[in-house]
Amino acid sequence: MTPARGDHDARRIEVSEAVWRVLAERGFGGLTLRAVAAEMSATTGLLTHYFPNKRALLAYALDVLERRTADRPRPAAESVLAGGTPGDGAVAGLAMLRAVLLDALPLTPENAASNRIWVGSWDVALADPELAAEHAERYRRSRERIAGHVADAQRLGELSLEKPAEEVAAAVQGFVLGLVVQALFAPGEFPAARQAELLDGYLAAL
Amino acid sequence: MTPARGDHDARRIEVSEAVWRVLAERGFGGLTLRAVAAEMSATTGLLTHYFPNKRALLAYALDVLERRTADRPRPAAESVLAGGTPGDGAVAGLAMLRAVLLDALPLTPENAASNRIWVGSWDVALADPELAAEHAERYRRSRERIAGHVADAQRLGELSLEKPAEEVAAAVQGFVLGLVVQALFAPGEFPAARQAELLDGYLAAL
Repeated sequence: MTPARGDHDARRIEVSEAVWRVLAERGFGGLTLRAVAAEMSATTGLLTHYFPNKRALLAYALDVLERRTADRPRPAAESVLAGGTPGDGAVAGLAMLRAVLLDALPLTPENAASNRIWVGSWDVALADPELAAEHAERYRRSRERIAGHVADAQRLGELSLEKPAEEVAAAVQGFVLGLVVQALFAPGEFPAARQAELLDGYLAAL
Repeated sequence: MTPARGDHDARRIEVSEAVWRVLAERGFGGLTLRAVAAEMSATTGLLTHYFPNKRALLAYALDVLERRTADRPRPAAESVLAGGTPGDGAVAGLAMLRAVLLDALPLTPENAASNRIWVGSWDVALADPELAAEHAERYRRSRERIAGHVADAQRLGELSLEKPAEEVAAAVQGFVLGLVVQALFAPGEFPAARQAELLDGYLAAL
């Protein structure tokens, strides 16, 4: 009944996949209307229809990144969830904290691609107060989620109550962010097994 | 005796300061010949004399960043060094490790500016295999230096011998890299005192 709308949606998906491929290969420094158009075998003119300027393209790219990250599979967290009946408390605590953190690391090529784009976004985000505030808010929410798992683990007696959950969460997030950067630059030195080992060593010291 | 050479050097300093200011304000995403020229009140034509293309400008910018980082003052490490006679062993170990790591954090506006540029360089570096390899080598050397201090602290009985110094150094570097990113995006939540507190909490857990 609404073929025009269907075409429009199909085109939007095509645009967002082209943006993703450009980001994965060239980063935000290589993100131009021309590069996205070439990736779609379209004209730059068609793209200006979607993005009147560079900033609109940038904002869209960050939006694609956010949606892709929200929608991506989280095998480690799902396998922990599958191990217990939801709400019984057994799927919470340290095992869940570990699973959530593992899912954030570049353990697979897909996750490395997505992390590479996140890390790349820091340059443009730090140059734009509005984008920087959005990123800051994103990382604050992520710390809150981590703090929830830390508090669960403390309640279950798996982690020491010595430090407030928020402090532990801030430190844990820092550790994981840094490990992502290390692994992206030196995938040979930081294969998946070593990343997990470093994370486990960190959690054990808590 | 060599006024031409002196002019040339003065101009190079002017170019490198203009590149630095552009990077500090707009990041690598805003680094163009036009932006550097405007910063110097020069013509883009003059700049093409120095940089035939964008990649040459990029490589130069990374070089400026590296030199500025090598030359910057390191108050914490210097104060530790001042506390002992060089070579007596008392200036090594955990205190030196802590001082070196403190100097890497964005505790001052100058260090925040320099860290902001380093973090911004990750996008362009990850998009270029040669630049990525150079960054990887830089971080590998930094891990080696950290491992040296960890090994000293282990020898002095200040740190447990349970883990190899290289493993501890990799984890420590990850933690500091991540803390830099957190503090750049949320300077209000991560003021200097909290950064130092998080670092001390991390070192205490080792």
